[in-house]
Amino acid sequence: LELLAQVREAIVRHGLLVPGQTVVVGVSGGPDSLCLLDLLRRLAPDFSLSLHVAHLNHKMRGQDADADAAFVAKLAADWHVPATIEVVDVPALAQAHKMAPEEAARRARYTFLTQVAERLGAPTVAVAHNADDQAETVLMHFLRGSGLAGLRGMLPATPMEELRLEIGEWRVESKGEEKPQSSHLKSITLVRPLLEVPRAEIEAYCDAYNLQPRFDRSNLDTTYFRNRLRHELLPYLETYNSNIRTILRRTAAVAAADYELLRDEVDATWGQIVRFETEQAVTFDLDAWHALPLALRRSTIREAIHRLRRALRNIDFVHVENAIEILAAGETGSQATLPQGLMLTIGYDVFTIADEGSHELPDLPWLLTEEALDVTVPGYTRLPQSRWGLRADVLPGSALSAEDLTGVGGWEAYLDATVVGIDPSLRRRRPGDHFYPLGMRGRGKRLNEFMINEKIPAFWRAYIPLLVSGEDEILWVCGWRPDERAALSDSSQRLVHFRFERE
Amino acid sequence: LELLAQVREAIVRHGLLVPGQTVVVGVSGGPDSLCLLDLLRRLAPDFSLSLHVAHLNHKMRGQDADADAAFVAKLAADWHVPATIEVVDVPALAQAHKMAPEEAARRARYTFLTQVAERLGAPTVAVAHNADDQAETVLMHFLRGSGLAGLRGMLPATPMEELRLEIGEWRVESKGEEKPQSSHLKSITLVRPLLEVPRAEIEAYCDAYNLQPRFDRSNLDTTYFRNRLRHELLPYLETYNSNIRTILRRTAAVAAADYELLRDEVDATWGQIVRFETEQAVTFDLDAWHALPLALRRSTIREAIHRLRRALRNIDFVHVENAIEILAAGETGSQATLPQGLMLTIGYDVFTIADEGSHELPDLPWLLTEEALDVTVPGYTRLPQSRWGLRADVLPGSALSAEDLTGVGGWEAYLDATVVGIDPSLRRRRPGDHFYPLGMRGRGKRLNEFMINEKIPAFWRAYIPLLVSGEDEILWVCGWRPDERAALSDSSQRLVHFRFERE
Repeated sequence: LELLAQVREAIVRHGLLVPGQTVVVGVSGGPDSLCLLDLLRRLAPDFSLSLHVAHLNHKMRGQDADADAAFVAKLAADWHVPATIEVVDVPALAQAHKMAPEEAARRARYTFLTQVAERLGAPTVAVAHNADDQAETVLMHFLRGSGLAGLRGMLPATPMEELRLEIGEWRVESKGEEKPQSSHLKSITLVRPLLEVPRAEIEAYCDAYNLQPRFDRSNLDTTYFRNRLRHELLPYLETYNSNIRTILRRTAAVAAADYELLRDEVDATWGQIVRFETEQAVTFDLDAWHALPLALRRSTIREAIHRLRRALRNIDFVHVENAIEILAAGETGSQATLPQGLMLTIGYDVFTIADEGSHELPDLPWLLTEEALDVTVPGYTRLPQSRWGLRADVLPGSALSAEDLTGVGGWEAYLDATVVGIDPSLRRRRPGDHFYPLGMRGRGKRLNEFMINEKIPAFWRAYIPLLVSGEDEILWVCGWRPDERAALSDSSQRLVHFRFERE
Repeated sequence: LELLAQVREAIVRHGLLVPGQTVVVGVSGGPDSLCLLDLLRRLAPDFSLSLHVAHLNHKMRGQDADADAAFVAKLAADWHVPATIEVVDVPALAQAHKMAPEEAARRARYTFLTQVAERLGAPTVAVAHNADDQAETVLMHFLRGSGLAGLRGMLPATPMEELRLEIGEWRVESKGEEKPQSSHLKSITLVRPLLEVPRAEIEAYCDAYNLQPRFDRSNLDTTYFRNRLRHELLPYLETYNSNIRTILRRTAAVAAADYELLRDEVDATWGQIVRFETEQAVTFDLDAWHALPLALRRSTIREAIHRLRRALRNIDFVHVENAIEILAAGETGSQATLPQGLMLTIGYDVFTIADEGSHELPDLPWLLTEEALDVTVPGYTRLPQSRWGLRADVLPGSALSAEDLTGVGGWEAYLDATVVGIDPSLRRRRPGDHFYPLGMRGRGKRLNEFMINEKIPAFWRAYIPLLVSGEDEILWVCGWRPDERAALSDSSQRLVHFRFERE
């Protein structure tokens, strides 16, 4: 009964069970789940729990699978625990969805457990992962290079919602059909009361209490990778450090706490670095983000992906590192591919993480209306539907030298007042637009070609304000390049200092 | 020359070299160090560096070792780089100090490199660890379970002082004698310019530039454990993930940044949780420490050990976890063994980390003087050489019931005023002291025996204030237990409320 006391202590320490409520127990018929069910049966009175056995017949091994289901049904009946036994044709599902059978089995099983819990109004689903499973998980994540988030391994309690978003979900009907559905899973928690118990102790418990597992199904739903890791790699690593399993579990515990601290820091920082946030996009302040320590620069990118996609585990080092490199270069308009169809785009003083091909624009002075806009010179012209405006000051030509212009560019320009004239306006591009980009030695260029050469993202191009004189003469492709003919020269008598300002 | 550009970039990015200064280059004669020397020779003009070759003949392989030394000496002469070649009898040293020859070689070598740098006034020592060495180091630390600190692997730049404290130091004379010395190493930095370069690229470089390494010494100074890891485990892990070496290096980079953030948090927290700090002891505020997130509770313990012992790497999980468990129980007087002869002791509202057997006392109301001290009742008696004092208030017997006494204990007591009398005093223990501990049903006990039973640390016992009436009658073993005869009873007419207060 030492194990009983140990598991009771873990349940209390991690707050795994809700007294007075129903617990759905996933029972495969193997030693782990038999041991779990037996322990929970003994603990049920203390916590005023109702137990409910759930077993999914995966149809993965023909007659054996059916016999397993019958075994679990009989056991539940013998122990007077209500049970839900269902069937799903995993091999068929796997084929239909082109996924590995193990992945399909896992997805079908968690969907099933969730459904049972929903049907019963149970806040908790208990599964029988043990300490050796935990060691394997940590090792697997280490080999895949997933950083602190992965080194945490499995947690004693996980919101079912997170798991669902991580592994996907099917709605499995009794007849093996499946249809996706949205659900309200936030209140269901997946708990792992045996996570600190080594497999050997579980087997000893089964022997001591004469629990006769149908067979060890623990290898059935695992991938070739994990099976090899379990049966070859871990025993081999024990020749390097005989405590390796304990070490891996401790690594998980320490990593979990370190990760939590890091997440707290991200939360504390979030408000100061994020300018806008919607369900579709997160826009960061570029300078504020750059001022963060490297660990937080990484973690905030991960957090944005997590908020937009709700799945953290699959974020590879490579993606985040690539994004960080591109942000270090910091060129306006450059982009980095992120996982799960997300794209990072650098704006003027911001960067945005959003759907690839999204029309989510970074916070820049876009011209969002079709109509042309008269520009007041001197004065301030507010851009419609925008937080931006264009300030124009008129100065004598002697007010600045060529040297003063060094570094001027982007959303600021000094133009010759005579060329600008008295009634400039802002408008969007039109077919046939062309201009003489400053620095190209008098060669004219089609505007479209210029935008492509400058690698301006396609979905931005329509919104770039063009400063024009009259109807056709482009003075400035705002944000990118003035026209050479409008640029300041030694003979300029007066100049106009244009700059876009954010409110 | 791609490698040259890559190494130059790494040198600039990490600020590895001090322009205009001398760099001591550790050269064994193997491919790594030959490549490093050749690259630094090419980069020397750009950074205005003077190079100096350093080679230690370990005498570990007889004639071969001598030939290696001759080879390096000739190479340095051919390349017109000054060199220091010295000899040390590592096998003899290892035997004398009962350490593994590889450990002895490592210690002797770093001591030697440090000495050469000191002699030359060189701020930098460069060694040739490569990206594969880094992957091995990360893996080794993972298998030993050293958390973020270890997963960082080797750093591009390490203060020599830290390394010295980690691996120990010998002062090695030319003739192979050794004597320990203190030194002023703080200004010498050990740098690893090839840390991002895989071994294969180094070998390709040697081939391309016709550098002919004497032989690959890289296996010579490595332990059996590391050699097995290099030649068996890593190639085996590549069958699980062919990118494992890259993954391990990235893990190191990510862990280094995460670790830095954690350390920043520790620094930011330190002032709020540490009450006193000396070279011998760190005393924490117990409540403030308990209020920290788990990751910081761990890290602050590690930091205290680091400050007192200057070596972080050897701190095992077990020690820190054990300390944390004991602190969670929080019993005054309980202790936890920490590595390197340190001990954690819990005081009243503090805990102290200090030398095992140290006479460093936690911040409690000790009686630090030999003389007895008259206690003013009612009133306040200040303890000599202490921040503590004893307040005594006289109250009517009806002022509180037995229930009010629940939880009263430690450094607070309610005693019968009649028994206390008019002239109580505080004194230290004397041979033959005995009293009637409250709750022991009238059985008398020798004070010494009581202290042993209560597990009061031996070096505290002499400083515990005893409240006595007259010369011999103990009223209260302050901090632990009142005498039964002095305790409050239903018949008490008046009572004295004693409590120690900290200024």
